[in-house]
Amino acid sequence: MRVDLNSDLGESFGRYRLGLDERVMEYITSANVATGWHAGDPLVMRKTVRLAKERGVAVGAHPGYPDLLGFGRRYMKLTPEEARNYVLYQIGALYAFTKAEGIKLQHVKPHGALYNALVRGEELARAVIEGITDFDRNLIFVTLSGSKAVEIAGEMGVRVAHEVFADRAYNPDGTLVSRSKPGAVIEDKEEIAERVVSMVKDGGVKAINGEWIDLKVDTICVHGDNPRAVEIAARVRKALEEEGVKVVAMGGFIG
Amino acid sequence: MRVDLNSDLGESFGRYRLGLDERVMEYITSANVATGWHAGDPLVMRKTVRLAKERGVAVGAHPGYPDLLGFGRRYMKLTPEEARNYVLYQIGALYAFTKAEGIKLQHVKPHGALYNALVRGEELARAVIEGITDFDRNLIFVTLSGSKAVEIAGEMGVRVAHEVFADRAYNPDGTLVSRSKPGAVIEDKEEIAERVVSMVKDGGVKAINGEWIDLKVDTICVHGDNPRAVEIAARVRKALEEEGVKVVAMGGFIG
Amino acid sequence: MRVDLNSDLGESFGRYRLGLDERVMEYITSANVATGWHAGDPLVMRKTVRLAKERGVAVGAHPGYPDLLGFGRRYMKLTPEEARNYVLYQIGALYAFTKAEGIKLQHVKPHGALYNALVRGEELARAVIEGITDFDRNLIFVTLSGSKAVEIAGEMGVRVAHEVFADRAYNPDGTLVSRSKPGAVIEDKEEIAERVVSMVKDGGVKAINGEWIDLKVDTICVHGDNPRAVEIAARVRKALEEEGVKVVAMGGFIG
Amino acid sequence: MRVDLNSDLGESFGRYRLGLDERVMEYITSANVATGWHAGDPLVMRKTVRLAKERGVAVGAHPGYPDLLGFGRRYMKLTPEEARNYVLYQIGALYAFTKAEGIKLQHVKPHGALYNALVRGEELARAVIEGITDFDRNLIFVTLSGSKAVEIAGEMGVRVAHEVFADRAYNPDGTLVSRSKPGAVIEDKEEIAERVVSMVKDGGVKAINGEWIDLKVDTICVHGDNPRAVEIAARVRKALEEEGVKVVAMGGFIG
Repeated sequence: MRVDLNSDLGESFGRYRLGLDERVMEYITSANVATGWHAGDPLVMRKTVRLAKERGVAVGAHPGYPDLLGFGRRYMKLTPEEARNYVLYQIGALYAFTKAEGIKLQHVKPHGALYNALVRGEELARAVIEGITDFDRNLIFVTLSGSKAVEIAGEMGVRVAHEVFADRAYNPDGTLVSRSKPGAVIEDKEEIAERVVSMVKDGGVKAINGEWIDLKVDTICVHGDNPRAVEIAARVRKALEEEGVKVVAMGGFIG
Repeated sequence: MRVDLNSDLGESFGRYRLGLDERVMEYITSANVATGWHAGDPLVMRKTVRLAKERGVAVGAHPGYPDLLGFGRRYMKLTPEEARNYVLYQIGALYAFTKAEGIKLQHVKPHGALYNALVRGEELARAVIEGITDFDRNLIFVTLSGSKAVEIAGEMGVRVAHEVFADRAYNPDGTLVSRSKPGAVIEDKEEIAERVVSMVKDGGVKAINGEWIDLKVDTICVHGDNPRAVEIAARVRKALEEEGVKVVAMGGFIG
Repeated sequence: MRVDLNSDLGESFGRYRLGLDERVMEYITSANVATGWHAGDPLVMRKTVRLAKERGVAVGAHPGYPDLLGFGRRYMKLTPEEARNYVLYQIGALYAFTKAEGIKLQHVKPHGALYNALVRGEELARAVIEGITDFDRNLIFVTLSGSKAVEIAGEMGVRVAHEVFADRAYNPDGTLVSRSKPGAVIEDKEEIAERVVSMVKDGGVKAINGEWIDLKVDTICVHGDNPRAVEIAARVRKALEEEGVKVVAMGGFIG
Repeated sequence: MRVDLNSDLGESFGRYRLGLDERVMEYITSANVATGWHAGDPLVMRKTVRLAKERGVAVGAHPGYPDLLGFGRRYMKLTPEEARNYVLYQIGALYAFTKAEGIKLQHVKPHGALYNALVRGEELARAVIEGITDFDRNLIFVTLSGSKAVEIAGEMGVRVAHEVFADRAYNPDGTLVSRSKPGAVIEDKEEIAERVVSMVKDGGVKAINGEWIDLKVDTICVHGDNPRAVEIAARVRKALEEEGVKVVAMGGFIG
């Protein structure tokens, strides 16, 4: 049994610092590196890619909406052509840093509202995946386990990593409970650890209403924006390893 | 005898249109494509790269300052680390579109005030060249013929294209006469054509004070922002060919 | 009988030119000046406000989404607090130029996708109107005649200009026919002129299905982005004046 | 004897937090509020102005270069027309928030590299001051005590606040010692406090080489970006008050 742990990194911008990147890198196997549109800048990208290389963490692009002011968290109505080429641009930009540092670009995980919008919108999902395959058919597309986007990626012949969220409650249909609702975010470290282990070993999770949902789990998203998040990442990793789950970068096992 | 003709293209942005790209592509052999910082956007980059491919025009990156408002034409005091990584980011972004369209990235020509600043500043020149070699040692660096930047590139073992300007007067030291001075821009089509032929065949040009300057000529910059500029490009190409000069993309002959 | 003619101006940005502002200013009575977020910049704002002053055209702010790349034409999901303060910021920015030139700020007309979004969304309409009244209760809010936003503005005690579009077809519910549908844009100059005269004199328009819709008409939107648009503006003005309609800035008659 | 204490606030942007604004507001009398170009955004501006109002702190605009990526700390070669209108735009934007909150706009202090550039460049100083007077002749222009910009402002009939820096060493010519040189920044809280008291009471300061420089002191710049900076601000205020210096907003005493 094996799983990847991913986290969104490189979200600082200019003078603005965000995230405990160095610390969370201790526990993850894949880093989603912001590509300068919703967060990140070339100096931050360089530093983050270099750090990932030093720590043996695999690197992926984390493209987002052209909305630094909103941190890419606000829905924007893009045409498919826009989405496709915005993603392509950002992948290329990050690729330059992996090339400069002599490492591989492993995956692409869309950020924030773009992540959510393509999980709900088929046309957008297709466009984003085309942006990825335009660059390299071999890149892994990270998207929400159980979503329609997984299916579409399958049809398009793209490698997919099925992603679950360590600290988020699920609706019975497999979507995440909106952050604005009570119980949407799980706070307790031990509960998160148990939940994650069960997700991997049992191949599913209990939805917020108690129903069981089957979920394929390739990679688990953890956070690194605050000290508590880093502790959770550490706890999750330890729990998985104690249960005999191998925590390795997704590139090693995604077909 | 052979020479390349280059032009700055893909400078439209969003709803804003700039340049007669389709028309000037008829006459040039290398396109410097804006990379989204001082001009250009992903849709424009895609379209421009596709057009260049169709017309058999070689493609290079045209990175600039992060200053869309000033069109990259205003000096900004960057640190070498900033310049290096800003250039690297932009090269990667454009590379993505050449990869998507299945063509090679041939060269890098810095834009506007960045072009001028690195011709005058050694530290900046080194930083920009490092940004290029970080990505690919084989890319051609296009810079002002006769400048210190040529020498630096030589020391750094980078392929260099010595560039001259078809319609600009030269100072006796080989720098361009500032646009604010009388006679800085040559307007007459026939004069430009003769001048360009002489540059290529005689390996130099008469400076504004009448002195002869030796100049190596690999590529000649022509413009495409208005109908007259396109006519000049057409005339320059015709004049060169009539004199038996082969007009070919720089990648074919730069060592 | 009197009516205002308005047009979106000052949409150039840096080196990018857009719109025949000088020419369309001959025919309009109110200019909606872009405020630097979706279009426009401080130099353009200064120049446009100065031109309006010279021509005796009243000036209003034309705030938009923070989306230069999309020209403010793409829906963005803003919170009410964001919308309110984004509008307030942009009103203040334009006000500075009217103050510098010694003229009054007459009105506020939201731009593009923001205009459309608030016509459909009550919460957003309220937020935008609050942004306006935060600055000055006396500013006129320009919005789609017949829309819910008119009502909301009424409830909030704000001066409203009911706007109609000279060249756009209407749905039976008073909304504009989407540009993607056939017949959405009326091309014929004479048809537009007749239509506009009828709108003002008869207080309504025939919808695309032939049904009559009552519409209050305070101001008519005309365009100035191309020579044909300017001709239409000229024709509309002439037609109105020939029918005895006084074409005057909205500030002179909105209660 | 009286003096103003000012600090740069409202420098957060979107999701990025910067500065201990609430805490440093306890000690200062004037807040320089970022205006959205190098830092700040409309939500941050609203919140900062509201906070200043609650604390009885006077508000000024803190306009900067259009360079969020560089936090306005990199020199950009602007034309005078650009500088003038960029400043005017930003003053208007902040004014909107003071108007919304029912308080006065007291002053304008250019930020970062723009502050430094105009202290050294007469033409730029004139342009920035024109941007201020374009908006309101009564606004106070805050600039480096002893600089040429003070003189220019005097000639132009503008109210000037002579500013000194609590924690920075001075060159014998009255300019600040560059941060890159040893001893440029004074670290010791007590030394800063004594120095500030002496500046106000003795009307000058000892330069880094021991020479005495006469300096008019209207306002003292303190920082709020970290807990130590806030302690220094507190200590400076206490030291001044213990020596009988009245700490009041500059608007109360600048002629």
